[in-house]
Amino acid sequence: MNGARALLSTLVDSGIEVCFANPGTSEMHFVAALDAVPRMRGVLTLFEGVATGAADGYARMADKPASVLLHLGPGLGNGLANLHNARRARTPMVVVVGDHATYHKRYDAPLESDIDALAGTVSGWVRRTMRTDDVGADAADAVSASRGGMVSTLILPADVSWTAGAHAGAAAPETIAPAVDRDGLRTALATLRSGAPTVILIGGDATRTPGLAAATRIAQATGARVLCETFPARLERGAGVPAVERLAYFAEAAQEQLAGAAHLILAGAKSPVSFFAYPGKPSDLVPEGCDVHLLADGAGAAAALELLADELAPGASAVVAPAARPELPTGDLTAFTAAAVVAALLPERAIIVDESNTAGVGVAAATAGAPAHDVVTLTGGAIGYGIPAAIGAAIAAPERPVLSLQADGSAMYTIAGLWTQARENLDVTTVIFNNGAYDILRIELQRVGAVSAEPPGPKALELLDLGSPAIDFVKIAQGMGVSARRTTTAEELAAALADAFREPGPHLIDAVVGSLAG
Amino acid sequence: MNGARALLSTLVDSGIEVCFANPGTSEMHFVAALDAVPRMRGVLTLFEGVATGAADGYARMADKPASVLLHLGPGLGNGLANLHNARRARTPMVVVVGDHATYHKRYDAPLESDIDALAGTVSGWVRRTMRTDDVGADAADAVSASRGGMVSTLILPADVSWTAGAHAGAAAPETIAPAVDRDGLRTALATLRSGAPTVILIGGDATRTPGLAAATRIAQATGARVLCETFPARLERGAGVPAVERLAYFAEAAQEQLAGAAHLILAGAKSPVSFFAYPGKPSDLVPEGCDVHLLADGAGAAAALELLADELAPGASAVVAPAARPELPTGDLTAFTAAAVVAALLPERAIIVDESNTAGVGVAAATAGAPAHDVVTLTGGAIGYGIPAAIGAAIAAPERPVLSLQADGSAMYTIAGLWTQARENLDVTTVIFNNGAYDILRIELQRVGAVSAEPPGPKALELLDLGSPAIDFVKIAQGMGVSARRTTTAEELAAALADAFREPGPHLIDAVVGSLAG
Repeated sequence: MNGARALLSTLVDSGIEVCFANPGTSEMHFVAALDAVPRMRGVLTLFEGVATGAADGYARMADKPASVLLHLGPGLGNGLANLHNARRARTPMVVVVGDHATYHKRYDAPLESDIDALAGTVSGWVRRTMRTDDVGADAADAVSASRGGMVSTLILPADVSWTAGAHAGAAAPETIAPAVDRDGLRTALATLRSGAPTVILIGGDATRTPGLAAATRIAQATGARVLCETFPARLERGAGVPAVERLAYFAEAAQEQLAGAAHLILAGAKSPVSFFAYPGKPSDLVPEGCDVHLLADGAGAAAALELLADELAPGASAVVAPAARPELPTGDLTAFTAAAVVAALLPERAIIVDESNTAGVGVAAATAGAPAHDVVTLTGGAIGYGIPAAIGAAIAAPERPVLSLQADGSAMYTIAGLWTQARENLDVTTVIFNNGAYDILRIELQRVGAVSAEPPGPKALELLDLGSPAIDFVKIAQGMGVSARRTTTAEELAAALADAFREPGPHLIDAVVGSLAG
Repeated sequence: MNGARALLSTLVDSGIEVCFANPGTSEMHFVAALDAVPRMRGVLTLFEGVATGAADGYARMADKPASVLLHLGPGLGNGLANLHNARRARTPMVVVVGDHATYHKRYDAPLESDIDALAGTVSGWVRRTMRTDDVGADAADAVSASRGGMVSTLILPADVSWTAGAHAGAAAPETIAPAVDRDGLRTALATLRSGAPTVILIGGDATRTPGLAAATRIAQATGARVLCETFPARLERGAGVPAVERLAYFAEAAQEQLAGAAHLILAGAKSPVSFFAYPGKPSDLVPEGCDVHLLADGAGAAAALELLADELAPGASAVVAPAARPELPTGDLTAFTAAAVVAALLPERAIIVDESNTAGVGVAAATAGAPAHDVVTLTGGAIGYGIPAAIGAAIAAPERPVLSLQADGSAMYTIAGLWTQARENLDVTTVIFNNGAYDILRIELQRVGAVSAEPPGPKALELLDLGSPAIDFVKIAQGMGVSARRTTTAEELAAALADAFREPGPHLIDAVVGSLAG
């Protein structure tokens, strides 16, 4: 077999059965090999950022990696923003970047560029396969590395791919859970038993039910408070799941949440820092005099919390969120009435992909008692994540409805992802929170003005305005084969959402809400 | 003044008066400063690849740099593909990337990444400004460097931007044309006088009328043949302009064009290599035994050719292309009838931005005698260039009509650029050559099959198909505020194109043409 077929065979033998692809000429032998390896599902996207975001959403819901096929340096470049988000989420992913033939690189053909440098910025593992004989082993290594919670990037020159004499690699072994750090455990135990005011900040694998239950049991037994990192990779919540408050995005609010803590125990989360720096405000959000203790990194957090809980609260059960939905609101559509509609109608076992940004401010509170659901968030702050991630989540969990809550400005970054939702007939309902602006930036501009005592001028404000011309998301979605409706009242949104949840296949609802920037 | 205002002042004092922007929180002080520096025009795009492609199109038509404002590493990542094209075109551009505050970087906040590594892959000049006091001088250096035909990237931490005490830098001096290489000139002269079969391959600044005229005069006097690099940054052509044949994209065709040459003189072009490698085919397209002589790099090519022409053909005039348009065709719309319609109706002084790829195969021949026009091409092979570049070209030359010939697959990469065309009310007519496929890749897949003797399978073909669902570009364009029509016959295309050229503002025409892959 040639290198391309060995690569595909190794991936499927390692349990990787989906490849999100934007191929080009240098990947044509990989494409040609797809028919010989029927277990691999190729999913075409119209832009590399869609492919990488989809692979991230897939892995978060499937708990295993997908592969991505990209075309040389520019293809990787287009995929970088969502690879950045994947890196921050510790998402396992195998990225295959086709390159020029080994002997062709020295000619500096037009598409030649430094792929290795780009890959290094987002990948925990990078390798360039130089011999066809190595393709199988390298691909297996890429899979193994990715399972450590990272993006693995395999650069595959075209001649290595097309040359015969390759053989499939040994399927990479599944990851073994990391050992719990006994020192971290002992310190956390002593701290929690001391009675001193303590916050447990959870992240990584502790944001699923077992970790949440353990953290909640600890809190119940010791009086410690539990907070969740601001942007968890995947948070389980809703009725019947132990509830956790997320650390706020704006530093001032996060400081209030953390105020008074003498100890901060990190369980899968990083020590809290502000998302951006602001003049005269601290970057480090740990309160003055508070001691920070590392209990566990991302992958071992749930296990460590369970050990702690069994010590501190043996036999106890965690309090869970009660079932509770808001009434369906009526009248004007705002960020808050839209959130209430979502909460009132959320189906069982939904996956919420949340890139609603400022306009989604009301969603978390409204859905706290909705049927149990997962929330996938924008871990790295690189917008253009939601539409692609919804593709991947729907492919990973075809029996679950996906609700993609999407800010208007961010939606336009990777809007072409709607076409793949239609092509694959995915059960994704996208709600555009359409406020006609980069509203977060209007808020930030006001904050700048508050510091400088100069109100924002018209040129500055114009640069954050998406209303001229207004973006008609209904037409855009229909143009890509997705059924779509515009809604301007709570009743209209409720009717559209109910229809979308009832009908299979992708839908988009343009929910026209007001600006929060005032 | 603060750093942000000093940056803006330095740019406008250096003649850079347009900034294509996708700002974020770390660039908010730059945005806030726009009202204080009214000479800077901020142009909002909805995706960074639109901003960088627009800046490239602007510089190619304005013959001076535009600036681009991007948000941290992910923003730069999204802009990389079109910066790659700009690098290949030797386009001058000043890219400003906002970064976290200097003291904030060590906290590894979610958006932290290695901006310097990304910038290095596409930029000839990269600097990170660490002190507010240096902003003006660094910005002036960035402008100076860019004028050497490169992307200059200035990384500006937020605190450097918001701190007071900056001062505008000295406006960077205009570039002085590089000295002609006397050795190269002497060798070329001797070669051309020898009577040996010679090809002059032109590129860089030799693809405008003065360079074309000089090359043509040399050819007329010596019998040498003139070819133009496959993807010139900007090629002047049409009635009254000396005509030049472009080197073919496919290596087999290019080899035929170069066959028989004993000498190859490079005037602003690189030595010809195939775009991709193919099994058993050469990468280097220089014929066996042919001597290659470097006359001049990109920026000095026209001047060197003029010196040669004055030696070899003093007083002679270059033959120019006669005015000639095809008749308006009727009936089915194909790549060739569509090209004839374009040629029959092309307005005076049009700028053609050409990302029509395979479907544009008939355009060059059809428009050879159309009114004189410029053609801006995809220099680096990174698709998603056309719609953004048309924005920049229209802003650089508001009195000229821009015709954006656009392949369907490539259009979807940066489709959000249509919104900026509407917002700025630019006189751009986009013709989508809609063949419902990545047709170039179907051709490449057939080539793979021809080598392996295995015809492409259904899974492989499906991965190159854009027809399921069909993309409705009319709805997509209307959704972004651009007037649009669908055409399926030559008559319909002619009517739509005539209307679009007559009415100011942006238009899109979805021209449904057949596949060439058969």
